[in-house]
Amino acid sequence: MKSYRKELVFNLPSRRGFLNITHYVEVALQESGIREGLVLCNAMNITASVFINDNESGLHHDFEVWLEKLAPEKPYSQYRHNGFEDNADAHLKRTVMGREVVVAVTEGKLDFGTWEQIFYGEFDGKRDKRVLIKIIGE
Amino acid sequence: MKSYRKELVFNLPSRRGFLNITHYVEVALQESGIREGLVLCNAMNITASVFINDNESGLHHDFEVWLEKLAPEKPYSQYRHNGFEDNADAHLKRTVMGREVVVAVTEGKLDFGTWEQIFYGEFDGKRDKRVLIKIIGE
Amino acid sequence: MKSYRKELVFNLPSRRGFLNITHYVEVALQESGIREGLVLCNAMNITASVFINDNESGLHHDFEVWLEKLAPEKPYSQYRHNGFEDNADAHLKRTVMGREVVVAVTEGKLDFGTWEQIFYGEFDGKRDKRVLIKIIGE
Repeated sequence: MKSYRKELVFNLPSRRGFLNITHYVEVALQESGIREGLVLCNAMNITASVFINDNESGLHHDFEVWLEKLAPEKPYSQYRHNGFEDNADAHLKRTVMGREVVVAVTEGKLDFGTWEQIFYGEFDGKRDKRVLIKIIGE
Repeated sequence: MKSYRKELVFNLPSRRGFLNITHYVEVALQESGIREGLVLCNAMNITASVFINDNESGLHHDFEVWLEKLAPEKPYSQYRHNGFEDNADAHLKRTVMGREVVVAVTEGKLDFGTWEQIFYGEFDGKRDKRVLIKIIGE
Repeated sequence: MKSYRKELVFNLPSRRGFLNITHYVEVALQESGIREGLVLCNAMNITASVFINDNESGLHHDFEVWLEKLAPEKPYSQYRHNGFEDNADAHLKRTVMGREVVVAVTEGKLDFGTWEQIFYGEFDGKRDKRVLIKIIGE
């Protein structure tokens, strides 16, 4: 069994945003030399998400509006977590979107359906945050 | 390390529905010959879900009502994604239910608690859609 | 490839609660002797969750309030699942929080970001419930 590890660092200029990171994961998979196995890709920060969905800007807008409805940022005082911090909503939003994805590797490629793309979801940005890629297989 | 891959295709007659696919995954596991490892089972389509919960029709009705409350299908115009399409709600519903499950394989069987069953969740049906099973182990 | 399996049993004194189980998973990883691979940790019960977030009691209070807003326990009669049972809300809450986490193992340790901790989320407690740890790798 082989394994491969890589960290990515992102610094988004706004509090919230989505970034297509599919290509980064494809590059890591090539570097690993693994042909059959599994890729784990997860946010290393608990106010961010890695998820799979559609690369369509209208949908990303819909996600933003929807997450603000489910777990509003303000008023900050509605959350007990917000004493020294103001990011309780980011913890909740990331919970809806998920921490991680696991993707099959088949014949050296991400084994994806037609529209599947991997996104980094940031909910408390403007700082360096890390994503982990771990690949195991042969 | 061994690996095994199989695709399932489902075509549900309605826009939304849940299907118990546990037996399909058990058959794939038997075909693989793998005794210890992990199964990844994921929707290959971004408006569908694979999740684990209870095989109880009342609960499935509750899921349907609840998801419509969290991410209503209509009015279509509330979502920017709905220009040429009308399925933005399906992307959101699948996000709540999740894309994938990872299940342990122990002594050649799905290592499940008493009530765990694997379901395919369709949120934009009436067409062929694919589910991936990838098994790695020994 | 090596594999290791362990079950944990929890019995929380209240209907709902969160428990930091990171140390249990670390102990299992040490017992496994696995240095590179993946850990799957999942609730074996469909009214409980295993998730990764912050070890901060204010945030756990926020999760409790938020989940009650998204999927209220009462009135029990709002859910069809609640005939002989009263735990439909627990199935929905666990869906939001997630069934499982997959964590990378690197150099014999859980490959975590600074604040990542593993929690057991109970939504229908006062009884013995199981969590599965399955580790594969080398």
